[in-house]
This record gives sequence, C-alpha cells and structure tokens, in this order.
Amino acid sequence: MIFNQYYDLVNKSLSSLIDSLGESSIYDPIKYFFELPSKRIRPIATLISNKLFNNDDDFAIPAALANEVFHNFTLVHDDIMDSSKIRRGNDTVHIKWDLNQAILSGDSMLILSYTLLEKYDPKIQKELLKLFNETALLICEGQQLDLDFEQKNDIDYENYLKMIKYKTAVLLASSLKMGGIINSASYADSEALYQCGINIGLAFQIQDDYLDLFGNQDKIGKRVGGDVIENKKTILYHMCKRNSNSEQLDILNHIYNSKEIKGKVQKAKSLFTETKADESTKDLVKYYSDLALESIEKIQIDSNLKEDLISLTNLLLERKN
Amino acid sequence: MIFNQYYDLVNKSLSSLIDSLGESSIYDPIKYFFELPSKRIRPIATLISNKLFNNDDDFAIPAALANEVFHNFTLVHDDIMDSSKIRRGNDTVHIKWDLNQAILSGDSMLILSYTLLEKYDPKIQKELLKLFNETALLICEGQQLDLDFEQKNDIDYENYLKMIKYKTAVLLASSLKMGGIINSASYADSEALYQCGINIGLAFQIQDDYLDLFGNQDKIGKRVGGDVIENKKTILYHMCKRNSNSEQLDILNHIYNSKEIKGKVQKAKSLFTETKADESTKDLVKYYSDLALESIEKIQIDSNLKEDLISLTNLLLERKN
Repeated sequence: MIFNQYYDLVNKSLSSLIDSLGESSIYDPIKYFFELPSKRIRPIATLISNKLFNNDDDFAIPAALANEVFHNFTLVHDDIMDSSKIRRGNDTVHIKWDLNQAILSGDSMLILSYTLLEKYDPKIQKELLKLFNETALLICEGQQLDLDFEQKNDIDYENYLKMIKYKTAVLLASSLKMGGIINSASYADSEALYQCGINIGLAFQIQDDYLDLFGNQDKIGKRVGGDVIENKKTILYHMCKRNSNSEQLDILNHIYNSKEIKGKVQKAKSLFTETKADESTKDLVKYYSDLALESIEKIQIDSNLKEDLISLTNLLLERKN
Repeated sequence: MIFNQYYDLVNKSLSSLIDSLGESSIYDPIKYFFELPSKRIRPIATLISNKLFNNDDDFAIPAALANEVFHNFTLVHDDIMDSSKIRRGNDTVHIKWDLNQAILSGDSMLILSYTLLEKYDPKIQKELLKLFNETALLICEGQQLDLDFEQKNDIDYENYLKMIKYKTAVLLASSLKMGGIINSASYADSEALYQCGINIGLAFQIQDDYLDLFGNQDKIGKRVGGDVIENKKTILYHMCKRNSNSEQLDILNHIYNSKEIKGKVQKAKSLFTETKADESTKDLVKYYSDLALESIEKIQIDSNLKEDLISLTNLLLERKN
C-alpha cells in the first residue's frame, strides 16, 4: 500500500533531518514534536503528486518535508494561542518547556521549513518560494480570522469558509502543487493540483465539523459535541441557521448563547437533524469532494497514474471506492 | 550625506511595502512597528554595500528591506521573551495588543521578509535564500543562548562572545554580504563584506556594553549601569574577571551576587577602572574595528568607492576619522 510506504519514507526522512540539526537546545522541542504521532498527510500528498510525473520519490522529499515542518510550526504556535495543553496525546511544547521556548523553537521550525527549499534548482526554487510565501501568509491570515472570531459573536458563513480555507486547505493545496512545480509541470496541471487540494481541504474540514457531533467517539478521538459545548459556530451551525424557520432559529440562538452544558449536545443534535443541517453538511462534503475529483480529471496525464491521488482523496474523505 | 539619503529611501520603501499589505488585521501591528523610530542600520548597510558595485540603489531595496523586516520580527518576539514593555519609547506589540497578536504578527513579519527575496533572479535568489536561512537560524540560536544564560550563573567569555555574534553581528554581516550577492560579486568580496559585518557587529555590541557603565546617560538613552543593576555579565564583567587578582575577584563576585542596589553601580565602576576592565574593553572595540577596516581593504574595488562603508564603520563605532 503506497500510503504506508510513503508514511515510512516521510518518517525516515524526518529522522535524518533531525539528525542533521545543530547542538543548540533550540532543536530539542523540534525533535520532540516530530516524534509525536502524526498522519503526515501533507508530505504524503506531495509524494503522491510527485509520482504523477516522476518515479523518483526522493526527489520530492525536501518539498514534502518543507510542508510538514511548516505545518508543525503552525501547531506549536497555535497551541500557545489556543492555550492547548495536549497535542496528539502528549504535552504541547509550551507546557513541556515554557512559553519562550515554544515561541523560539516555533520560529526556528518556520525557518527550517524554508531551508528545505534550498535543495532545488534555482528556477524551481524561485517558484517554490513564491508559492510557499503566499501559502504561509494565508495560513497566518486564517489564524488571524480565528482570533478575530473569538472576539465577535456573529461570523457569517462566507467568512467561516474563508477561515477553514486559509487554515486548512491552502497548505494541502500547496503540498500537492509542489509535486507539480518540482517537475516543471504545466501551469494548468499545477493549478489543477492546487484546486484539488483546496477542495479536499474544504471537504475534509467540513467533514470534521460534521463528525464532531455525528461521528463515533472512538473514531474521532475526542468528546462528541465538543464544538457545541464550546459554542463554536462550525458548518453545522451555519447550515442550521440557513435551514431554520424563525422558531428553530430561536432554539439555535438559545443553544449557542447558553452556558448550560447539560442536555446541550442532545438538543443541538435534535435541532440539526430536524432542520436537516446534518444532510446539508454532508451535501457540502460531497460537493467539495466532487470538485476535488473533477480537478484530478483535468490533469493531463494517463489516468492509471491518478489512482493514488484518487485513493488519497477517498481515504481523507471516507468515501467508498 | 549618504546616510540621511539612504535613511529616507528605506523609510519611503517601507511605507510602500506597508501599503502593499492586505486588509487582514494581522498587519496592523506590523504597520505600527515600522512607524516607531529606528536607525535602519541594516538596510542602510545593504544599500552602502550595493553601492560598491552598482549605482542603482533601488536594485538593493528588496534585500535591504528583507533584513530590516527580519530584524523587526526578532524584536517583536524578543520583547515577549524578555517581558519588555517599552520599545523605542512606545508600547511593545504584546502590550499594545496581546500575546497572541504579537506571536502571530511576528510570524507574519518573518514570512514577509522572505517574500522580499522573490524580487531577484533565480540564481541570485538561491544564494540569498541560503544566506538568509543560515543567518536566521544563527540568530535564533543566539536568542536561545540568551535564554539558556538566564538559567545559568556561570557563562564564560567565549560563549558570551558567541551569543553577541549570533544575536547582533551575523545580521549586519548578512546585510552587507547581500549587497555583494545581488551584484554577483566574487566569493572573496562577498566574504570580506560578511567578515566586515561580523567585526563591526562585535565591536558595536562590545562598545554598547562599555557605554552602559561609562557612557553619558543622555547619549545612551537609558539608566547608566543598567546591566550591572540587573547582574548582566557583559564584556566589562568578563574583562574584569580576566584582569582581577583574587581579592578583586571576591569584590566582583560580591557585586554580581548582591541584590543591594545602593552604591552597586559606583562600586562596579571603581572596580572596572582599578582592574583596567574599561581599558581592556576599549581595546577589544578597537581590535574588532580594525579587523572590520582590514576586511574593507580586502574588497577588490577602487578605494574611493569604499568611503561610505568606512564612514558607516566609523559612525557606528564612534571613531574619529
């Protein structure tokens, strides 16, 4: 199975990267963080994308790792901003060390991700740098929207979608597009890969919102309805708002303005089912999944070669083949 | 006067950069920070270095700004780590906004500094990226040494010198070397510019340590002896330790282990004068200044062209021409 093979390759390459780091204690939290369990979705995406054009997996490793290291930098800093104590079942960096160490080691991870781009030829590197910078700034803007939303009570659907696009989708899009760029793929193919990533990313995050309430506790690995308890207005909220009559809207507002936790999750679940917010959310997942698959169709290569990319999409979006 | 002219050019270019930023509130602290008073030493250094090879100042602006934006990123994050409330007479970002905003806007500044490298041709860009990454990681390692030293009581002279080299000198070195790189200067010339920056940076920081105790309060803009009061073991401490007999060593240890502030500065001043730590420190400034000037001599261009670079060195190191 290609995913397991790529998963192992990514972890092996990350280990080599860690071994190459200097002696400074700045790197200790980075080493720690890379040993936490992770699905390595983004670097695997780059490897799969590279495979569309090139059988040499190693060629894509620096780009794949750049995306993974960058992603981990965002987690270290986001964990501070969200006051999260646990990441992947272990202490977050600012808890295991302290605030200063988490800031500084996070900064170093960000810089480290840029050093990985050095491995490519000048022309490719120039394109990679442009994409990487663009993506990185959008991700920061996404985190800013998240911070801004914490202060506001009334976020509309469009802005919520923009936030999840920036926070989640653009890095997956960039990870896929990089596989094209390093192989000097055509502009159209690279762009199709980018759009594929955006749409998988959106579908994935919307599915995540859905599973928070309608998923199986064992499977999602966290308390069912956690978003509702925290009054987080995810896609389910927005779909419910869109589908509600005035009476249902009152109930929705009551649920999200109440600090009473008892019965809250069950009330939300009933309302979302009654207003078919659950179905609308599933429809959205399908909508973006279909767009992702359409983007894959547009790539101008033999369709046999696309199987892994389609499998990745189905795997992430829990679609049955 | 070229410095004033370059100072204005840097500020004008920074204003254009700020205007080009997006609408996200992430950029508000960046705009604020760039409006604080600053000497703009690093970008001016890049412009002066560029002038050795090229009369087109604008060509060096993106590289010059990359160094300035990066420098300001380090200040925003360092201010958090040092719990500093005032920067250049104004609130630091984490005070004016909050911790999360300072982390996130700092991250964006770091990324923004990389976007400025995009302006150069692929081959030049590749060299710039390598130097920029190297420099950025060393600066983070320098900050790590600073954090490590806060936990330890016994830092030796070599490690102190390494810290100021990483925290201060490498960015000035990189700022000067970039002026060579963008003009495809020879390896030897670019390296001479780098060494010149390292030595100016070391001399500058050692002079700063000297002036803390022996400078004029109006001129240094902070309380005389602030380092002594905080028990910071700067170069004066290390020179004193080196020059002291056992009795003087006891006095030195007493001063740096005492929490009694009354008379502390005067005691330190007397001891440093008696042990000639002041003279040894001034000798070190001269030693590194001379090395900087020797590096300038090595650059293979007409010596008339070197005047501005020599003036910059003398200006920073308060040498009389």
